[in-house]
Amino acid sequence: MSARVLIVDDLFPNVKLLETKLSLEYFDVIAAMNGPDAIAICEKGLCDIVLLDVMMPGMDGFEVCRRLKNNPVTAHLPVVMVTALDQPADRLRGLDAGADDFLTKPIDDTALFTRVRSLVRLKAVTDELRSRAMASRDFGIGDPLAIATAETGQNADILLVDDRASSAERLATALSQHHSVTVETDPHQALVRATEGSFELALVSLDLKDFDGLRLCSQLRSLDRTRNIPVIMMAEAHDRGRIIRGLDFGVHDYLMRPIDRNELIARVRTQVRRRRFSEVLRGAVQASMELAITDGLTGLHNRRYLDNHLAALFSEAVLRQRPVSALMLDIDRFKSINDTYGHEAGDEVLKAFADRIRTHTRGIDIVARYGGEEIVIILPDAGVEGAHTIAERIRERIEEVPFSIQRDTRSVAVTVSIGVAARNAEDAGPADMLKRADAALYRAKAEGRNRVVAAAA
Amino acid sequence: MSARVLIVDDLFPNVKLLETKLSLEYFDVIAAMNGPDAIAICEKGLCDIVLLDVMMPGMDGFEVCRRLKNNPVTAHLPVVMVTALDQPADRLRGLDAGADDFLTKPIDDTALFTRVRSLVRLKAVTDELRSRAMASRDFGIGDPLAIATAETGQNADILLVDDRASSAERLATALSQHHSVTVETDPHQALVRATEGSFELALVSLDLKDFDGLRLCSQLRSLDRTRNIPVIMMAEAHDRGRIIRGLDFGVHDYLMRPIDRNELIARVRTQVRRRRFSEVLRGAVQASMELAITDGLTGLHNRRYLDNHLAALFSEAVLRQRPVSALMLDIDRFKSINDTYGHEAGDEVLKAFADRIRTHTRGIDIVARYGGEEIVIILPDAGVEGAHTIAERIRERIEEVPFSIQRDTRSVAVTVSIGVAARNAEDAGPADMLKRADAALYRAKAEGRNRVVAAAA
Ligand SMILES: [Mg+2]
Ligand SMILES: [Mg+2]
Repeated sequence: MSARVLIVDDLFPNVKLLETKLSLEYFDVIAAMNGPDAIAICEKGLCDIVLLDVMMPGMDGFEVCRRLKNNPVTAHLPVVMVTALDQPADRLRGLDAGADDFLTKPIDDTALFTRVRSLVRLKAVTDELRSRAMASRDFGIGDPLAIATAETGQNADILLVDDRASSAERLATALSQHHSVTVETDPHQALVRATEGSFELALVSLDLKDFDGLRLCSQLRSLDRTRNIPVIMMAEAHDRGRIIRGLDFGVHDYLMRPIDRNELIARVRTQVRRRRFSEVLRGAVQASMELAITDGLTGLHNRRYLDNHLAALFSEAVLRQRPVSALMLDIDRFKSINDTYGHEAGDEVLKAFADRIRTHTRGIDIVARYGGEEIVIILPDAGVEGAHTIAERIRERIEEVPFSIQRDTRSVAVTVSIGVAARNAEDAGPADMLKRADAALYRAKAEGRNRVVAAAA
Repeated sequence: MSARVLIVDDLFPNVKLLETKLSLEYFDVIAAMNGPDAIAICEKGLCDIVLLDVMMPGMDGFEVCRRLKNNPVTAHLPVVMVTALDQPADRLRGLDAGADDFLTKPIDDTALFTRVRSLVRLKAVTDELRSRAMASRDFGIGDPLAIATAETGQNADILLVDDRASSAERLATALSQHHSVTVETDPHQALVRATEGSFELALVSLDLKDFDGLRLCSQLRSLDRTRNIPVIMMAEAHDRGRIIRGLDFGVHDYLMRPIDRNELIARVRTQVRRRRFSEVLRGAVQASMELAITDGLTGLHNRRYLDNHLAALFSEAVLRQRPVSALMLDIDRFKSINDTYGHEAGDEVLKAFADRIRTHTRGIDIVARYGGEEIVIILPDAGVEGAHTIAERIRERIEEVPFSIQRDTRSVAVTVSIGVAARNAEDAGPADMLKRADAALYRAKAEGRNRVVAAAA
């Protein structure tokens, strides 16, 4: 993937050298010669990845990295630290600051290009999600970018695939301080587990007996149910070929054996944070969309959802010649609750009423607020008798326990009238069925309320 | 990117050969030996890309491709046709059926892997968007996948970058039958145009004088404002190295010179369709999200949006010590409109009222339906005098032309009362300002309606 690379280095020749290399590979290059300039460029959204020198006068690379990773506007940018000294302590400081990787000067070209490409590709996949999520800040569900950035990457469910007992045990012990670790020695079984479990990270040894661990990585990255799980490969130092291939097809990171305990913990944390970052964004977009089809007071679906979903559900029932029924519910004398106890008490009753109904319906039923105190329930696969039974049960549950209002200081008896109708062959569409349910509800009211009336078929 | 590749071929040795090659490159391989099986696998969402044999008994490859590309469930899957004969007529039939590319047997490995990787990466970027868009089918904005699939890829704005006059003219002439073409000979100017224009495709010659056309492709793919524009490179047959590099960093497709007129038209159409496919999905997600903050009747923002957005806007005004004002509007004697002409007429008035207000406010103002016939307008950067002037103008515009109702058969005179308040230093938050605007509105009503009253500062 082509991308805009920001090179940050206080020495001009260093900038120039990297710029030449990256330009020849068709990257777009921007440069900054100190930390504050770099941060400003990132905040303006002018780059896709940062190559960051560690030793700079004023603000050093660690500090720049920390600031970028703690700022919701820039936290999604991959940062690769570039250092002259390959000291484990340095690497660790960088990783602790949130860096995605480390490159040592003099820079190896293959390592540089592979890493930049791999990080940029991973970023491209979530860029769309991020831009949608940003739009959800006005929805009252909080600022998703800020929430995502605050993730610490602890307490993750980790799948560790390693068939050498001593290695697996050492790694599991190190990780268990911060995470919950499942060890699996069989790669086939590991894939099954990853598909069925809810792992937030997979650590895969490339040196399994009789099996190419890189293949497992590739399967994890390509299966629908596992492709959002970050994967870290663990390889011997001489195995650079497979590491590069893995990064090239989407493995997120790698650890070289012998594995440094602190580096293990740092890289795992970075990947868990990244995964949760995406999940928070995904959740924000999902939640924003759901608001559009949700009634704000009761949390039930709203009429927009009912109208659109019922049309599809009804056609399907016609096509498959399956029954479908509708219940139309209306709280009895709701106006007098409002008049006697005030609107807030009325809202409390409506909310509790919705909650009670929810516990007596199934996931496949549609429960929607239809108007003020009217609720519609659609029961797929239920004929008029089945629907009548369910309606009667709901009526009883509403009647038998009074509703507490005004913060549990009072309680008020509530009853409900319910009209029931099932789809019949003459119905041109769901509106006909709802009309019959409404007429049945009218009769239930007329016959004295607190009762269920079914429309004639 | 790792991916699940579906190989479709009626001959087992062909399947085996491709399977071996792709497995060695760490792709996950699935196979089907006839068209119907292949379509079933695709419909179940079990693959990311299809390698499709042309000659098969029963349903041939062209027909399989056509069905996949016309089905909303499978239209997003890249299809590469594999043929023994490299006849232009065959290529064209495949491209006309919607195929993304063509490979000739015996298959060149580099070409195969490069193409599969490039198509799979492009798909990965929109997969997230597609899965969000699918969720929007219950929102009453239509089925985005069906709409996207119905796109024909005609009438696009195309940027053609070629500095050889004869070539540019020939290409432009061929494309002008179906599209609107802008020719640009200077690559620097081309980038500026792409950034500023609304092109849906860029065709870039790699053989520009004194400039590497591939660099322009890379810039188009990496700049924020151009990265959603599909790019097709045009190259000489001997230039395979640069073609592969281009595909590798995200160029969508290529044409080999001498360029076949029909192939040009077919490939352009495929890329335009792909681009519009993504745009439709993006639009559907955006629209679904906006429903959550939009009032269904008037199309104005709803109270959810007002509450959340106003909080941010108010804090910003405090921080920057800038003014901000609120207008609280209430249609006079609205109940009597409803009682006299019916609820539908009342809704007509509300809608027209909202439209009139919209034309007298700016993009940066918030206009939100607050309750039944109450509307709130927030004016950033306006003090109480400015806000009063705007309120007075709105009041006049409502009064001076009566509202037509009942499908233009009647008209009704409407007036509005408006309360105005500006932020003051004692306000703990926006609620205080709104409360003053509400009190001012109350006075406007009490003083005889159809007037603007500003709260004391
Ligand atoms: Mg330095
Ligand atoms: Mg065949």
